[in-house]
Amino acid sequence: MGGGDVERLIQMLSRLPGLGPRSARRAALSLLRQPQSRLLPLAHVMEAAARNVRTCSSCGTLDSCDPCSICRDPERDHGLICVVETVGDLWALERALIHRGVYQVLGGTLSALSGRGPDDLNIASLLRRVEAGGVREVILALGATVEGATTAHWLQERLAPSGVAVTRVGHGVPIGGSLDVLDDGTLVAALTARRPA
Amino acid sequence: MGGGDVERLIQMLSRLPGLGPRSARRAALSLLRQPQSRLLPLAHVMEAAARNVRTCSSCGTLDSCDPCSICRDPERDHGLICVVETVGDLWALERALIHRGVYQVLGGTLSALSGRGPDDLNIASLLRRVEAGGVREVILALGATVEGATTAHWLQERLAPSGVAVTRVGHGVPIGGSLDVLDDGTLVAALTARRPA
Repeated sequence: MGGGDVERLIQMLSRLPGLGPRSARRAALSLLRQPQSRLLPLAHVMEAAARNVRTCSSCGTLDSCDPCSICRDPERDHGLICVVETVGDLWALERALIHRGVYQVLGGTLSALSGRGPDDLNIASLLRRVEAGGVREVILALGATVEGATTAHWLQERLAPSGVAVTRVGHGVPIGGSLDVLDDGTLVAALTARRPA
Repeated sequence: MGGGDVERLIQMLSRLPGLGPRSARRAALSLLRQPQSRLLPLAHVMEAAARNVRTCSSCGTLDSCDPCSICRDPERDHGLICVVETVGDLWALERALIHRGVYQVLGGTLSALSGRGPDDLNIASLLRRVEAGGVREVILALGATVEGATTAHWLQERLAPSGVAVTRVGHGVPIGGSLDVLDDGTLVAALTARRPA
């Protein structure tokens, strides 16, 4: 299986989510065929990322600067905070170009099963931001799961005294989705959220 | 989508074979969550591989030393050369622990369509090794494709004058495979290669 360097590279690549042993070998081979033009540049990008990327002390996302480029953007609506579970969720919303406010990344959901309470999530800084004033609306863009709903409910109660508007993202039929593959919960949500056509 | 470092990391990861944009984002997130314990070590392994790994001047595989660890292994049968198309094929045979001889990695197959002739493949060093003497048998472990068969045929003719035994790997029903999913060519090969039960 080649020497130690090749073996180590394959082993570490195979630990990436989405890459099994087979695709890790393919990826390693493809990189090793172009050591100077592909392998080394990737190594350098990884080193720079490990050195520079940090968690934003305001919203909790990952960026090369703190506060992150979203939190320091004066064109963003800082009165509108969208609460998401993960950095990946934030990226998804950013790709959709749908939210012009700022974010709060919880880092997960409340979960009695996994023993994750409010102190294990990035909630304190959300409450600080709301208490500091200037926030008009908090949008809860959490997953449509039991844990997501529990977390949304908890945040709603916790934020109620502040007088800030708390909203939740709509649930229903995904755009491009057909009804016959959807679960009952989604169908109930879609019918309940019906509007004039 | 985060700052420049995050973006660059995702972009470069998404160019790996087997990783699309979606899984590249997942991989980047998972690495960025553990910058010191995962991202940096992977970067260092990649740098070491880019610095150390080279093509074996004898057989053409990739290794940290030249000649490679297989070619310099005195326990290997250096009179038995297994010819494969790619380094990946060599790895597959090594994992199967089936071949105790040495290898020759062609780096592809002859292909009129792609304009790959004998000079484009790692064939000259195979001929040199055979002419130097000490080789008893050359096993052609090439793919069961038109190009693989063409290359095997060409090598067979080219090696005939040397008097070295030239063999080909058997074709037939893959172990664990059922007949009804196999193509006609494989079924013909399997029936032609039938043996007493």
